[in-house]
Amino acid sequence: MASWKLTIAYEGTRFAGWARQPGLRTVQEELERAVGRILGGIEVQLTVAGRTDAGVHATGQVASFETDREPPDRFAERINAVLPRDVAVLAAERAPDGFDARRWARRRRYRYRVLTGAIRDPFEERRALWWRYPVERARLDACAEALIGEHDFTAFTPTKTDHVRFNRVVTEARWEEESERVLAFRIEADAFMRNMIRVLVGTMLEVASGRRSVEDFANLLEGAPRERAGETAPAHGLYFEGVAFGDGPLVIDYEAEAAPE
Amino acid sequence: MASWKLTIAYEGTRFAGWARQPGLRTVQEELERAVGRILGGIEVQLTVAGRTDAGVHATGQVASFETDREPPDRFAERINAVLPRDVAVLAAERAPDGFDARRWARRRRYRYRVLTGAIRDPFEERRALWWRYPVERARLDACAEALIGEHDFTAFTPTKTDHVRFNRVVTEARWEEESERVLAFRIEADAFMRNMIRVLVGTMLEVASGRRSVEDFANLLEGAPRERAGETAPAHGLYFEGVAFGDGPLVIDYEAEAAPE
Repeated sequence: MASWKLTIAYEGTRFAGWARQPGLRTVQEELERAVGRILGGIEVQLTVAGRTDAGVHATGQVASFETDREPPDRFAERINAVLPRDVAVLAAERAPDGFDARRWARRRRYRYRVLTGAIRDPFEERRALWWRYPVERARLDACAEALIGEHDFTAFTPTKTDHVRFNRVVTEARWEEESERVLAFRIEADAFMRNMIRVLVGTMLEVASGRRSVEDFANLLEGAPRERAGETAPAHGLYFEGVAFGDGPLVIDYEAEAAPE
Repeated sequence: MASWKLTIAYEGTRFAGWARQPGLRTVQEELERAVGRILGGIEVQLTVAGRTDAGVHATGQVASFETDREPPDRFAERINAVLPRDVAVLAAERAPDGFDARRWARRRRYRYRVLTGAIRDPFEERRALWWRYPVERARLDACAEALIGEHDFTAFTPTKTDHVRFNRVVTEARWEEESERVLAFRIEADAFMRNMIRVLVGTMLEVASGRRSVEDFANLLEGAPRERAGETAPAHGLYFEGVAFGDGPLVIDYEAEAAPE
């Protein structure tokens, strides 16, 4: 059996998220159907690096599968020809034997996009959170800085949870000006819990608008209860950007924690 | 009666264009309803600088109207609060008496966005033409250069037409790299005929991919018949970007030519 790696982009608006759910339109189902069809009508099972919730987008998602079929030339283009237009395979490559997009992943990168200012932007409607309140950029930067390192993110995931381990190691966290009106929060960590980035962003924006102090935010990072953190920012500002892989499965397995972000 | 100027953005995907049409969803109807409502339930008639066809977007459209009502504070924000989310008023300002967005317009600016490369981009699905064939950039630049000045654009509008005058003066025309994969064609002229930019782009892309020579394109600009030009590029790559106004109505009136681009 050969292992394959797919790099994938999707506009999440019309998907009920990555993971298959009966009766709902999911990225996983669309892709498994398309890949299976191009391989001659077989069943394909995809494993994904970062499960995403309904409405979340991806620009560099990675999924893997195994097959004994030989894919055709221009494999990615062939898959795209039968995929709906809100999802595309950016690359389809042979991977090392046993490659598994979830277990081999070492770090995941996300971006959260925030449209600022008093006026909506019709082109950002399902692609960024519109935050019309004043934003003090220096306070956002201070929050991002506080995030670097290992922390207990209990405050940033729903109280009812399948997660058994709440520490995560953040290797990058920063806000940047993507354009005149769009601020983007970029974060990289070994793994994320369900809603974690959305609650982080919702809470940081409260700091940015003066409703909460930077110290308060930093104090949440050491295992505070969920009710002390802020609102969950909407899914449609969130983008799965990419994955860094190791050369084998991780010793610490996140299987028990494979809930969608 | 006071004159007002609205600067407007819309994502054209779900509109049947600017101009009111019975039974169809149009930008004009949505805006007239919203503005009339904020002014206390009156009828408002908008005049627009550049009528756009179904699917065409706008980032800097301008419309005008007259009223004896006094608008509320934060007029634009109030209008936006009752508008659907794919259209927004960016600014609402008092204009000189008699201001008319169509008759006072001297130059209109459009942009046409082209996604290049072998792979689709789900985020550009209704926002750029996907052109998967090779593109020789220097040939595009040569076409753009040939466009500057006054030409007879008969070849670039449908044969069945209400237009009575086919000369237009192009004051700017250039291709630029908007991002790694998106090429944008920017054009400014005194006025445009129906489909003119879309046929120009469709024909220039044939030149870029080697199916037609630059000379052939240049020869079309002096009154050649429609059938000698190329395909009409789709509406969803086109954006109305802005208008330059004079300080009064134009002597040459384009009224007889007020068909949508």
